[in-house]
Amino acid sequence: MTRRRLKVIGIGAGNPEYITIQAVKALQQVTTFFIPLKGDDKADLHLLRREICERYIDHDRYRMVDFDIPDRARDGAYRSDVSDWRAAVRAIYLRLLTEELGETDLGAFLVWGDPSLYDGTIGIIEDLRAAGMEIEYEVIPGISSVSALAARHRVALNRIGQPFTVMSARQLEKGLPEEGNVVVMLDTRDAYRDLDADLDIHWGAYVGTEDEILRAGRLSDLQDEITDLRKKARAEKGWIMDSYLLSRRSDPKD
Amino acid sequence: MTRRRLKVIGIGAGNPEYITIQAVKALQQVTTFFIPLKGDDKADLHLLRREICERYIDHDRYRMVDFDIPDRARDGAYRSDVSDWRAAVRAIYLRLLTEELGETDLGAFLVWGDPSLYDGTIGIIEDLRAAGMEIEYEVIPGISSVSALAARHRVALNRIGQPFTVMSARQLEKGLPEEGNVVVMLDTRDAYRDLDADLDIHWGAYVGTEDEILRAGRLSDLQDEITDLRKKARAEKGWIMDSYLLSRRSDPKD
Ligand SMILES: C[S@@+](CC[C@H](N)C(=O)[O-])C[C@H]1O[C@@H](n2cnc3c(N)ncnc32)[C@H](O)[C@@H]1O
Ligand SMILES: C[S@@+](CC[C@H](N)C(=O)[O-])C[C@H]1O[C@@H](n2cnc3c(N)ncnc32)[C@H](O)[C@@H]1O
Repeated sequence: MTRRRLKVIGIGAGNPEYITIQAVKALQQVTTFFIPLKGDDKADLHLLRREICERYIDHDRYRMVDFDIPDRARDGAYRSDVSDWRAAVRAIYLRLLTEELGETDLGAFLVWGDPSLYDGTIGIIEDLRAAGMEIEYEVIPGISSVSALAARHRVALNRIGQPFTVMSARQLEKGLPEEGNVVVMLDTRDAYRDLDADLDIHWGAYVGTEDEILRAGRLSDLQDEITDLRKKARAEKGWIMDSYLLSRRSDPKD
Repeated sequence: MTRRRLKVIGIGAGNPEYITIQAVKALQQVTTFFIPLKGDDKADLHLLRREICERYIDHDRYRMVDFDIPDRARDGAYRSDVSDWRAAVRAIYLRLLTEELGETDLGAFLVWGDPSLYDGTIGIIEDLRAAGMEIEYEVIPGISSVSALAARHRVALNRIGQPFTVMSARQLEKGLPEEGNVVVMLDTRDAYRDLDADLDIHWGAYVGTEDEILRAGRLSDLQDEITDLRKKARAEKGWIMDSYLLSRRSDPKD
């Protein structure tokens, strides 16, 4: 049976200099990069991945294999949409690893931000392994958009003695967690508008990139401006990636 | 008034190669490193910070200023202990920045892991600024112990469509959050033992370092072994840093 070797490399979420020395060393060893094309951000993020390779690899003994990621259906129940979508992506990965990766190759998926955060790559590889495919792989952590957001705002994620939670905008609809700060990702619906607590927001779009936009202050003062900025940014670039930290104003300041 | 320039640099949590290109570039510019001595891990982590400087800085136009961090009193109420301790640390920082940093210097604090996660450096600098000190500073994100733990276990932090929470062992005593996975840090009391849900654990000590220990599986099967490993490691090295991801076995697998 063919043994396949892979690296799942976190490339950081925005600034090309967020990449780690460990990731740079790994990039140098890779023979085959699998580069996904997906969503509206296709062109830009695709370019960024290619740029990272050109910038940090000092030889040309590697090739790029582009592949399409299907858009996720959004009509059914959330979990079943996700699982249909995952099955489709799994089939694509299976084909890539079977057809594009030889015995002596080292393949790599470059994951935006950190591979452990709201990303399916590890899960899909584990599925393929569970189905019997022999894959030897390593995961290289990256600077997540959560760390990047906090750094650019120069703010701690947690208040002293309190937890903090990372969630999607969809989860935020069920309400804030009882205690602690929240970082919200994947907001396609301006979910920060429907909250009734008195909150501070640290919001950032395209954090770490040249297009970075940051706003911080009381949510009730800023929410209209943020909604406008989101709309404008999406109209101008065709896509947006943004996230925000919410904290209760009633919590004791550190 | 003297303007002081500072960088708060996340150096990653374990592997010296977790450091980012952005951090390496920043290190090269720094003239004055403030190196804390604190707790039982003093010698080892101190050494590691010095090693990082030696490894990644190719000139010798910098100096190191060691300083002691007082141990935190643990007899009073948690928050007031923390705030007394913070006041003491603030006074130390004030002295360092006043006496050790000239107009043309660039100072730096090297923060273990990511500066936004359970670390007081940003908060203290903000306090000094609020008190009127003129400090110009930048925060450089780092690979947190949370990302490192997940990468080494090759596991996602969140289940699809679910939040995840980062908390201290102290907070875990109040119980698990209603939904989603949990990462627990700062456990000095084997807090994973008192949980009554049926959980999986991904545990790691000294993650990313040569002394790394990893265990994963059903918590009820592993908890005694982990307690032993913690005890032994603490006895051998004199200190331990470990953390763990908990997930409910009843949650749908991704
Ligand atoms: C599918 S998740 C992937 C997260 C990624 N693995 C990470 O570690 O950040 C994509 C979401 O991350 C957030 N995000 C990623 N990069 C970002 C950036 N540079 N600025 C702001 N938000 C970002 C946005 O909320 C976006 O919807
Ligand atoms: C004061 S907090 C600082 C966290 C740090 N800023 C970060 O980003 O990881 C220290 C705690 O982080 C966790 N930790 C830090 N480094 C670790 C490592 N290499 N392996 C396991 N846990 C680690 C432990 O739970 C430890 O008690």
